[in-house]
Amino acid sequence: MKSAVTHLSVTAGERYAFIDLTDDLVRAIKDAGVTEGAAIAFCAHTTCALLINEWEDGALEDFRQHVTRIVPHDGVYYAHDDFEVRTQNMHEDERKNGHAHVKAMLLSATSHAIPVIAGEPGFGRWQRLIFFEMDEPKDRTVTFHVFGS
Amino acid sequence: MKSAVTHLSVTAGERYAFIDLTDDLVRAIKDAGVTEGAAIAFCAHTTCALLINEWEDGALEDFRQHVTRIVPHDGVYYAHDDFEVRTQNMHEDERKNGHAHVKAMLLSATSHAIPVIAGEPGFGRWQRLIFFEMDEPKDRTVTFHVFGS
Amino acid sequence: MKSAVTHLSVTAGERYAFIDLTDDLVRAIKDAGVTEGAAIAFCAHTTCALLINEWEDGALEDFRQHVTRIVPHDGVYYAHDDFEVRTQNMHEDERKNGHAHVKAMLLSATSHAIPVIAGEPGFGRWQRLIFFEMDEPKDRTVTFHVFGS
Repeated sequence: MKSAVTHLSVTAGERYAFIDLTDDLVRAIKDAGVTEGAAIAFCAHTTCALLINEWEDGALEDFRQHVTRIVPHDGVYYAHDDFEVRTQNMHEDERKNGHAHVKAMLLSATSHAIPVIAGEPGFGRWQRLIFFEMDEPKDRTVTFHVFGS
Repeated sequence: MKSAVTHLSVTAGERYAFIDLTDDLVRAIKDAGVTEGAAIAFCAHTTCALLINEWEDGALEDFRQHVTRIVPHDGVYYAHDDFEVRTQNMHEDERKNGHAHVKAMLLSATSHAIPVIAGEPGFGRWQRLIFFEMDEPKDRTVTFHVFGS
Repeated sequence: MKSAVTHLSVTAGERYAFIDLTDDLVRAIKDAGVTEGAAIAFCAHTTCALLINEWEDGALEDFRQHVTRIVPHDGVYYAHDDFEVRTQNMHEDERKNGHAHVKAMLLSATSHAIPVIAGEPGFGRWQRLIFFEMDEPKDRTVTFHVFGS
């Protein structure tokens, strides 16, 4: 069995930006030399996500509107952002991002397992792998683990 | 290592219909001859989903009610459906399904990774693999990748 | 290829409790002797979930508040809990947990596929594997399938 791990560096231009990672996934599969198997796409962070959906600006804007309506980042108390009370995991550049943790847990889009068929992701016609930043932009790492024959 | 990819054709009777795919998954595992390993279930589309939960008509109806309340398909503007503005990915049989894209991204239920134990899906007593159509019915493909020994 | 399946017994102290399973995942990987590969974490139930996020009491409380706001368990009719109408899957200790089924399907957090790198879960700095009970506490099983070289 072939197996290869690739780390991809990703930085969004702004909060709620999307980045199309499909070509990076395709390249990771080619580089691994896997024809049939699977690829795991994993987001190594707690306030961003990986989506599999269509890249159409309107659909992405619709999603942005709904996810920020369902879990607002203004006008709601987040205990995670109450730095007068909170004691755990406080670090030098702590930011108010409680809303993004809640969104990330609600989406539960940290990992995807994607079949590899004929050396390509087994995606349908409209599917793309999309990184979604929900925090102020940071340097992010997305990991691909490709395995198979 | 054994490895097998199976494509399953699925067509719902109507929007928001559920289809139980558990027996198809069981069959894909048997056909692959895998006793211990894992099965990836992957939905190759952007407006439907794969759920793992109990097949009880009431629970499925409850879910349908809540998901259509949380992301309504009427009375809300979807940029994806604004064909006077939109230019990307317009094709011959384009439908107004912006709501279904948002639901699909919110659920993030495109893939599942399921342990295979003693030649069966490692499901608990009530778990079933369930296809959920959120768009007008179309011909859909669900892919199983089964691997292991 | 090495491959190992581990079953972990988990029981929450109360509804909406969180349990950190990261150390159990680390141990399962060590016990499997896998250095590079992947781990599948699978929750074999229909009314609890596995989250990957930060373990910070405030963030977890925020998530609890939002998920119970988005899918309330009081003041809403659940067909799953209407025992005068329902006929399917009725068993001796049936409980009113329709809300938890809906939450579980919305989260769609039954499985995660996690890269294994240098014999450890390929987690980012703040990521933890977290069990989330949404029902009255029950004895639960979480399955890890670790594979690779």
